[in-house]
Amino acid sequence: MNWSQIDENAKTWTREAGERIRASFNEKLMIHTKTSPDDLVTNIDRETEQFFIEKIRNTYPDHQILGEEGFGDKIDKLDGTVWIIDPIDGTMNFVHQQRNFAISVAVYHDGVGKIGLIYDVVHDELYHAKAGEGAYLDDVKLPPLKEVAVEQAIIGLNATWITENKRIDPSILAPLVRRVRGTRSYGSAALEMAYVTTGRIDAYITLRLSPWDFAAGLILVNEVGGKVTTLHGEELNLLGQNSVFVCKPGLHETISKDYLSKLK
Amino acid sequence: MNWSQIDENAKTWTREAGERIRASFNEKLMIHTKTSPDDLVTNIDRETEQFFIEKIRNTYPDHQILGEEGFGDKIDKLDGTVWIIDPIDGTMNFVHQQRNFAISVAVYHDGVGKIGLIYDVVHDELYHAKAGEGAYLDDVKLPPLKEVAVEQAIIGLNATWITENKRIDPSILAPLVRRVRGTRSYGSAALEMAYVTTGRIDAYITLRLSPWDFAAGLILVNEVGGKVTTLHGEELNLLGQNSVFVCKPGLHETISKDYLSKLK
Repeated sequence: MNWSQIDENAKTWTREAGERIRASFNEKLMIHTKTSPDDLVTNIDRETEQFFIEKIRNTYPDHQILGEEGFGDKIDKLDGTVWIIDPIDGTMNFVHQQRNFAISVAVYHDGVGKIGLIYDVVHDELYHAKAGEGAYLDDVKLPPLKEVAVEQAIIGLNATWITENKRIDPSILAPLVRRVRGTRSYGSAALEMAYVTTGRIDAYITLRLSPWDFAAGLILVNEVGGKVTTLHGEELNLLGQNSVFVCKPGLHETISKDYLSKLK
Repeated sequence: MNWSQIDENAKTWTREAGERIRASFNEKLMIHTKTSPDDLVTNIDRETEQFFIEKIRNTYPDHQILGEEGFGDKIDKLDGTVWIIDPIDGTMNFVHQQRNFAISVAVYHDGVGKIGLIYDVVHDELYHAKAGEGAYLDDVKLPPLKEVAVEQAIIGLNATWITENKRIDPSILAPLVRRVRGTRSYGSAALEMAYVTTGRIDAYITLRLSPWDFAAGLILVNEVGGKVTTLHGEELNLLGQNSVFVCKPGLHETISKDYLSKLK
């Protein structure tokens, strides 16, 4: 496998897809809903996924593709080379803000992360990693994450998870909100994982993500020494939905022990 | 009064201050705390405020200045022309992220907002308004805000306010979090008010701001037909701390009636 060539292609296609999305801002956006009125999808999400699929199929006909919009393959195992793609992560932001969304592209081989790209389209910032070679923001190599005390931490956590909801008892994380220095919520899992990678936030906690939401971020965070698990401390399942708990080293253990151990 | 000249000067100084802040990213940041370990201030906050004060004093010696860092005047009334300045709104973001902070500059005359500027330093985006002439993002005039249903709204609301805290019963806003399409939290009041001005978020609710946090945003939001009050629906006091409730038209009335009417 020529991983450098795959990496170069992935970057080129991602930037090209971003350019197409930026150009689309002047066109009419067609917004549809999927499973619920708030589960949005646009023609741009669909066209962007199809753009990637065509490129990958033409260049690497033996690779598999797992994509949010469902134009890829039906996959029930991670054998061989698998591209995991979210054409627009943060569709609600894309629709409402036309910013704060990202393209997320990951390449796995036999279940092992090889290449992770998160592209902040509007700000033209590419977060990228090749396994074992460190993580970068554009041309700048990102330093290893340092430990931080809970009291000095800023965590990415949406207000939903400390309000009555279907997935977690709100009283589990509420005391964490009171203890940390601050919380933020940006509305794009890929970007929030990129922000942990750069150290802009110290942790990110969410209750339900699909593989395309976290596949690239997982590779990026690992490359700078961060830890990514479910809220129960288990390895993420790349073939299903997961809760996701991303953290600087050290902080992961403290939050697990003091708060998440109360999970059923 | 030559308001066009004041406006031009305010913009020039703001951009120049932003350039100095960007240049400072390579220097050592000295971080101090003020009233609490999380109330941060840096040498850059202080130097930026002093930069504005020197410019204003030299050019408009009869104007008053109200600034977050306290190098301006002690003001107990809003007679005459008053500059209200936050050199870095979102200091925690500035320290942790070196992004998602803004310079906020407002000019009031006899208590009436005349000029509002919010400068997203890292992204080099200037949100600006002159009273009665509309609001702009750089060269683009921003359209009037449209009404939106609560169910389709994205609101800026920090998780703190639905967790046990000193300022509001968390059960008042928790049902609103469940009803809206989504919540976000960016950690800069000035930017969140700029985001309401552009329609990227539909409302912003927070419990404790000082005049320099909202003075420019108030002018911007008013220029696009948004509504800014305290959570009790009162006019903001530019000489003290306030809760702040910023909204698209229509949405303000609904949230007030359905949720905030439960406030004591």
